Amino acid sequence: MPKPEKHVFVCTQNRPQGHPRGSCAASGCSDVINEFMNEIQNRNLFEKIALTNTGCMGPCMMGPSVLVYPEGVMYGKVNKEDVKTIIDEHLLGGTPVAALQVPAEVW
Amino acid sequence: MPKPEKHVFVCTQNRPQGHPRGSCAASGCSDVINEFMNEIQNRNLFEKIALTNTGCMGPCMMGPSVLVYPEGVMYGKVNKEDVKTIIDEHLLGGTPVAALQVPAEVW
Repeated sequence: MPKPEKHVFVCTQNRPQGHPRGSCAASGCSDVINEFMNEIQNRNLFEKIALTNTGCMGPCMMGPSVLVYPEGVMYGKVNKEDVKTIIDEHLLGGTPVAALQVPAEVW
Repeated sequence: MPKPEKHVFVCTQNRPQGHPRGSCAASGCSDVINEFMNEIQNRNLFEKIALTNTGCMGPCMMGPSVLVYPEGVMYGKVNKEDVKTIIDEHLLGGTPVAALQVPAEVW
């Protein structure tokens, strides 16, 4: 693909059940990345938005974690319903969704 | 971690031997990510540079792929020996390594 305008990284790290750090997989990240994939496909945004699954990005206790570059905005506790908001307001609209961002001390 | 100055994404996608698209794993990405990890540790760069493994980022035939944000610079066919160069010249020096970048039509 050509260099995208926005690049969305979704953590899909898994850890064994009961692991003290938890994981984005245990928090439902597969619903989140699938929703991004569906929306990108339905709106034909392949040329604008890249979507990549990742290993651990750090804020495991606030998963599912979604990181958007080039701004470097880290979202936490993202659920399926938040995906359209992130796409509409941030990825297309250009304004990061403040309410979904992790606290400044986390990222 | 606090928001890093540079975020290095290393593709660690694997595919079965003989797969037509190849993969970064088949091209030796584990040496590359391990070298980044060692150098970040040896130089104590944890506060400046984040390192994350990813799934497929696209240019599979030019793997191992290394993507650096916030610039969005994609490096291809990166080998272990290139890692110090990328750290010295780009991540610390601020100048992307032109010779290692994938062609503009790829990214």
